[in-house]
Amino acid sequence: MTHAKQILETHPTGSVIEAEVLLACIDACFDCAQSCTACADADLAEDDVTTMIRCIRLCLDCTDVCIATGQVLSRQTEFDPELARPVVQACLQACRTCAEECERHAAHHEHCRICAETCRLCEQTCVGVLALLAV
Amino acid sequence: MTHAKQILETHPTGSVIEAEVLLACIDACFDCAQSCTACADADLAEDDVTTMIRCIRLCLDCTDVCIATGQVLSRQTEFDPELARPVVQACLQACRTCAEECERHAAHHEHCRICAETCRLCEQTCVGVLALLAV
Amino acid sequence: MTHAKQILETHPTGSVIEAEVLLACIDACFDCAQSCTACADADLAEDDVTTMIRCIRLCLDCTDVCIATGQVLSRQTEFDPELARPVVQACLQACRTCAEECERHAAHHEHCRICAETCRLCEQTCVGVLALLAV
Amino acid sequence: MTHAKQILETHPTGSVIEAEVLLACIDACFDCAQSCTACADADLAEDDVTTMIRCIRLCLDCTDVCIATGQVLSRQTEFDPELARPVVQACLQACRTCAEECERHAAHHEHCRICAETCRLCEQTCVGVLALLAV
Repeated sequence: MTHAKQILETHPTGSVIEAEVLLACIDACFDCAQSCTACADADLAEDDVTTMIRCIRLCLDCTDVCIATGQVLSRQTEFDPELARPVVQACLQACRTCAEECERHAAHHEHCRICAETCRLCEQTCVGVLALLAV
Repeated sequence: MTHAKQILETHPTGSVIEAEVLLACIDACFDCAQSCTACADADLAEDDVTTMIRCIRLCLDCTDVCIATGQVLSRQTEFDPELARPVVQACLQACRTCAEECERHAAHHEHCRICAETCRLCEQTCVGVLALLAV
Repeated sequence: MTHAKQILETHPTGSVIEAEVLLACIDACFDCAQSCTACADADLAEDDVTTMIRCIRLCLDCTDVCIATGQVLSRQTEFDPELARPVVQACLQACRTCAEECERHAAHHEHCRICAETCRLCEQTCVGVLALLAV
Repeated sequence: MTHAKQILETHPTGSVIEAEVLLACIDACFDCAQSCTACADADLAEDDVTTMIRCIRLCLDCTDVCIATGQVLSRQTEFDPELARPVVQACLQACRTCAEECERHAAHHEHCRICAETCRLCEQTCVGVLALLAV
């Protein structure tokens, strides 16, 4: 249980978009950043590390993009939908690409199965935010 | 509820230090990074923003250090306690300094009260990890 | 003078896109991340901080997105143009939005004039990379 | 050539510690973050990736800590030496540990030789900053 909801509810201007959808995405971004960092690291310790190179690379990318997106969405002051939109689109793509690769290893690496799940969850929350930011 | 525990339990080499203590710190680091990002942003929207300058600056620092620490601790492969120790010490100090400032505003800004709480929680989990990394 | 060029030239698979264009964007991303961090901080120290709120917020966003983009583009192994494209598009937008705001303050705050310049440079290098990633 | 110096010179309160020493460290932190990201990625593309696991892990750690340190040091407003000190100490250790490992591979991987050089440079600038922050 994170403190994102409590902080958001006490923000002077409140949530700029539907709070529930926004919070789901913020929490998913930070959770996914952690999962991808841990999955890339677990890949490095696997015997078949040579077959995990693409997985490692995409997990690292997904971490970086999720951290940036989680931070941008955590800010309500002077929120700019024109900026938030491409940021969330990049996050959606990073999560989708990483999930697709992790799913290919899910049967033999449990951490990839869990990481794929986290990425798919984050991807879905990005879809939710984008629906609210639609032009 | 994050996925940190599930991923850690499926890591090929397992947790390098007591898993419960490690996980508490990892989760607290990412939660604190989000809280501090949101608190700095809420400060910017307050009428008395001119009295919140130190709070904003320390929240930004705390965010940056918590993200780095959460990532370093999420890695179990080739874990190096000599490196982890000063990283967690920096995180402990960032959380403590930020909490002290947020506590000064807790009575009039609810987001500062919550952020201070998150910082103190993260500070405590850093103490826990440092006890396990002690020379 | 950074070491980005030297490292890239010694990468086993080499640069996935035209090296000069890629390097310009990588260097600009990290430079812009630093400028925006410093400009947000300088804004906080200005007497007219209450008129700089939008500038601070956008500088923080631009920092986060530039760091993620600089890291994603620094990776050549298993480079995925479908992922790189929206990341660079988000960076382009973050730089453009931040530059527009900084330019509004350029006449009275020299750090905003310089930061706008850095953002515009980064924006242009993103345009260059996107041209190479075009479908 | 980055814009760090120009922005710092126009900061309303100026540099809190000797500007030349501070700027060398800020520039080195961002340069080192990029080098380590690129070196970890180059390692992943090497035929002997199984012998580069520790190098990859330490490069990722060094990246994260250098980014946090570069950002904390880029802020002059309400600068707190009690917080800056452990942050720079963590950075010094991350750079040193990473350099030691990269140096072990410098003879056969040119990117490790260059990355070690960047880490050593950043380590030295951290020593310089710590001398100014000494109690």
